[in-house]
Amino acid sequence: MVDRLYLYDTTLRDGQQTQGVQFSTADKMRIAAMLDELGVDHIEGGWPGANPTDNAFFEAAPKTRATMTAFGMTKRAGRSAQNDDVLAAVLNARTPSVCIVGKTHDFHVRKALGITRDENVENIRASVAHLAAQGREALFDAEHFFDGYASDPDYALDCLRAAIDAGARWVVMCDTNGGTLPGQIGAVTRAVIDAGIPGDRLGIHTHNDMGMAEAGALAAIDAGARQVQGTLNGLGERCGNANLITLIPTLLLKEPYASQFRTGVTQDGLKSLTRISRTLDDILNRVPRPSAPYVGASAFAHKAGLHASAIAKDPTTYEHVDPGAVGNARIVPMSNQAGQSNLRARLKAMGLTVKKGDPALARILEQIKAREAEGYSYDTAQASFEMLARRELRLVPEFFEVKRYRVTVERRKNKYDRMISLSEAVVVVKIGDEKKLSVSESMDETGSDRGPVNALSKALAKDLGPYQDAIDDMRLVDFKVRITQGGTEAVTRVIIDSEDSEGRRWSTVGVSPNIVDASFEALLDAVNWKLTRDADAI
Amino acid sequence: MVDRLYLYDTTLRDGQQTQGVQFSTADKMRIAAMLDELGVDHIEGGWPGANPTDNAFFEAAPKTRATMTAFGMTKRAGRSAQNDDVLAAVLNARTPSVCIVGKTHDFHVRKALGITRDENVENIRASVAHLAAQGREALFDAEHFFDGYASDPDYALDCLRAAIDAGARWVVMCDTNGGTLPGQIGAVTRAVIDAGIPGDRLGIHTHNDMGMAEAGALAAIDAGARQVQGTLNGLGERCGNANLITLIPTLLLKEPYASQFRTGVTQDGLKSLTRISRTLDDILNRVPRPSAPYVGASAFAHKAGLHASAIAKDPTTYEHVDPGAVGNARIVPMSNQAGQSNLRARLKAMGLTVKKGDPALARILEQIKAREAEGYSYDTAQASFEMLARRELRLVPEFFEVKRYRVTVERRKNKYDRMISLSEAVVVVKIGDEKKLSVSESMDETGSDRGPVNALSKALAKDLGPYQDAIDDMRLVDFKVRITQGGTEAVTRVIIDSEDSEGRRWSTVGVSPNIVDASFEALLDAVNWKLTRDADAI
Repeated sequence: MVDRLYLYDTTLRDGQQTQGVQFSTADKMRIAAMLDELGVDHIEGGWPGANPTDNAFFEAAPKTRATMTAFGMTKRAGRSAQNDDVLAAVLNARTPSVCIVGKTHDFHVRKALGITRDENVENIRASVAHLAAQGREALFDAEHFFDGYASDPDYALDCLRAAIDAGARWVVMCDTNGGTLPGQIGAVTRAVIDAGIPGDRLGIHTHNDMGMAEAGALAAIDAGARQVQGTLNGLGERCGNANLITLIPTLLLKEPYASQFRTGVTQDGLKSLTRISRTLDDILNRVPRPSAPYVGASAFAHKAGLHASAIAKDPTTYEHVDPGAVGNARIVPMSNQAGQSNLRARLKAMGLTVKKGDPALARILEQIKAREAEGYSYDTAQASFEMLARRELRLVPEFFEVKRYRVTVERRKNKYDRMISLSEAVVVVKIGDEKKLSVSESMDETGSDRGPVNALSKALAKDLGPYQDAIDDMRLVDFKVRITQGGTEAVTRVIIDSEDSEGRRWSTVGVSPNIVDASFEALLDAVNWKLTRDADAI
Repeated sequence: MVDRLYLYDTTLRDGQQTQGVQFSTADKMRIAAMLDELGVDHIEGGWPGANPTDNAFFEAAPKTRATMTAFGMTKRAGRSAQNDDVLAAVLNARTPSVCIVGKTHDFHVRKALGITRDENVENIRASVAHLAAQGREALFDAEHFFDGYASDPDYALDCLRAAIDAGARWVVMCDTNGGTLPGQIGAVTRAVIDAGIPGDRLGIHTHNDMGMAEAGALAAIDAGARQVQGTLNGLGERCGNANLITLIPTLLLKEPYASQFRTGVTQDGLKSLTRISRTLDDILNRVPRPSAPYVGASAFAHKAGLHASAIAKDPTTYEHVDPGAVGNARIVPMSNQAGQSNLRARLKAMGLTVKKGDPALARILEQIKAREAEGYSYDTAQASFEMLARRELRLVPEFFEVKRYRVTVERRKNKYDRMISLSEAVVVVKIGDEKKLSVSESMDETGSDRGPVNALSKALAKDLGPYQDAIDDMRLVDFKVRITQGGTEAVTRVIIDSEDSEGRRWSTVGVSPNIVDASFEALLDAVNWKLTRDADAI
């Protein structure tokens, strides 16, 4: 029998509690649209009345297929639900669904609220009844439920029953502090269902304080809970919430879940997972975590030589799911542990078919080894690796030649006696027989100095004649520097990430004792890669 | 009854399979020392014979309390264990313990090795027997064990039994592809023990491809396995291995584990956890993950208003363990009072005694907050923190003033038509009423260009009049650069480590969109710190 499993997303509410995360209303609109594309059942949009952003978001009332949900808390003691202004603000958001949080742990009832146990139960009952009377779908988030159950199971169950009896569609067991082990979550969930709370009205909300938020959520599902709450990329207070980006493919692709459950996520939604995860990082200006399960850039990267050669024979030898199913891709990175078969597989993935035993393979491996000894690293700098291989395979035209460059960095007082800094770069290139001199400075639109590499990259991109169109949509998106050992001396390794308007993203590497020179080398590789790829596309 | 649970670290071997990670031999020595401080039982140091770094590490033979282990693989078919050169290289590393990986899944025996099932069992037996005959502690890593068990449980068990019977101290169930659910891991572990493999000779090795590596490891421990393998910060192939930094506090602080097990990790080792995790990131020049369980900067940060006010009443309301137990600290945005007492303690450690309530304390905290918003970080840059505090406390004389500087970086062809690069720096300082112009270039003794920061640092240090003696013995020993967010724009953060002839080592920080300017700021702090400390010593 196939069961319906419901996905409840709280990126816009609990995800907003992440340290350093502050969504704008426009961010929230974009994220809501992505969640809809993915196919979650509920979108918890925020707490109406708590801050201007959340108010503006609910006022904009984005049209979603998913049920839009407003978050709030149970009424306070000593007033009726009708007269509670916090509850009123939540209802005023006019969402079809409302989720309110309340206590179920006697310790918190005493310590945080300072009211009696019975008053707390009555607050839950009256609040839920009020939501239901207004025609809303009501959810009750049982805060600290597992700690409460451990301390006094009867009282914790009384709180859930009060919500269910008052008309709650869902009661949600929250492991608010993230300290409950998956095995304990499973056992308590079974006990709750045995006590009469139906599994198809029972949800689970976990946190990642022991690195087991997803395992905890699955333990509750195994025991019969049928709603799971989480966030995109595991955003959330402290160590974050259960990561829906991780949970969804596990539920859809892995047995026994794949056969057991039906969700609102289609195979197309699943394929959008990698893009959605990275777009969220982009909105937050975070670097995507390479090791993220399913969607990370390294999630299907096979560095060990033994793995890489087996993967070439059959990908299922070292992959538990097909990377394409979640919109991700296999990577066989280059490193000093790789051999020729690894190399051929990697070249093939780039569209370069090289025959077994081709002498260019040995030359490429030798080059890589020599360059890694100098401090280069091709694990992430795939585009530089491709350019190196293409050069050995005679598959890259010389688009242009850099004759020389000069950069000046100056710091001095301006006429107002304030210290200012400015960089200026001159680049001289030869395209065919034509020599071109370009100069740029490092000032951006706001008048701030963006440094010598910025000036250099602008001067290089300023006038490349026939190639100008191709590089006009290139953008430098990340820049990493590390000091490493090249031969006997410390050298600087620079890795540059570039992006173009088609959404392609590529990494290049440069190495030199001189940081500006290392950056320039990586820049040149980035430009040449783009020109080569665009030339191939024609 | 308290059971001994053994911790096996493979940061230096499986962790090295992380995309983008390339340890130097010196890195490996430092990490081994940290693992020893933490208190793990085994350190898997690498694969002797696989690459020069691992060879050099085993040749250096670092003295550790933990059992140093070399990694390799079972002998190939068609030759004896005595004549297998790969196995010989592993034994030549002369470690007391050797771990060899082998197949237990019939599919891999056919697909990857192309030998018969019996040949594979014999390879395992003969290899382990050979290790034991050489007096080594032998471990057998059963690759793809759970997939193998699902496909043919009898064959998978035969492989384990062959290793045990041949004298293996441990047989380790590896979920190599990371695709086995924790519940399945638990069930198979129970079955293996029921089939006669003793739990105290059974290990578990999990991967994080579903975000559940730690949950999987715990499931095996729950079922009776008594060795757990993992890496620091969860480094490892693809999505990484089980994270020992997460598992250790769960095992030591959480019930039922805390009462059930004894490990080699002491309470002091546990307190070093946060520092060790961040030092490893530092070695790898990675930004520590703020949301990392237990050790992340956000792990005990309470952003939600409701949480923060309850925490003030009783920390256990929203914390499942005490942050101090793992060497981490609580962050409550509003607790200025706690901030001041922390600050006084930190200043005292630097020899600066400040009275309670001194208004300078509030000014220092404000400065730090404002600067951290700009992208500064004082976690490692203690000397810059000290200089900031001293400035607010009026405890730093103005030794000299930098009026201006200019650096030129040039790359062009020399008269032999070879591309060369050269940097030149001019620095103008005022000491008292005297103005001094200094110029230096970036060429070292061998004629190599060392880059603009080198030229700048030499020009700054060239003529500082009365302070020349003090800074002549200063040396720049490390230089780290990171792109970070300062306000709305990306900025460059440079951290410089300096050293002097007395063996003092100190770190300073500079932030600017301009990398040269950020470096110069860090350099200036480094020089001023040295002059201040030397002046204090007089």
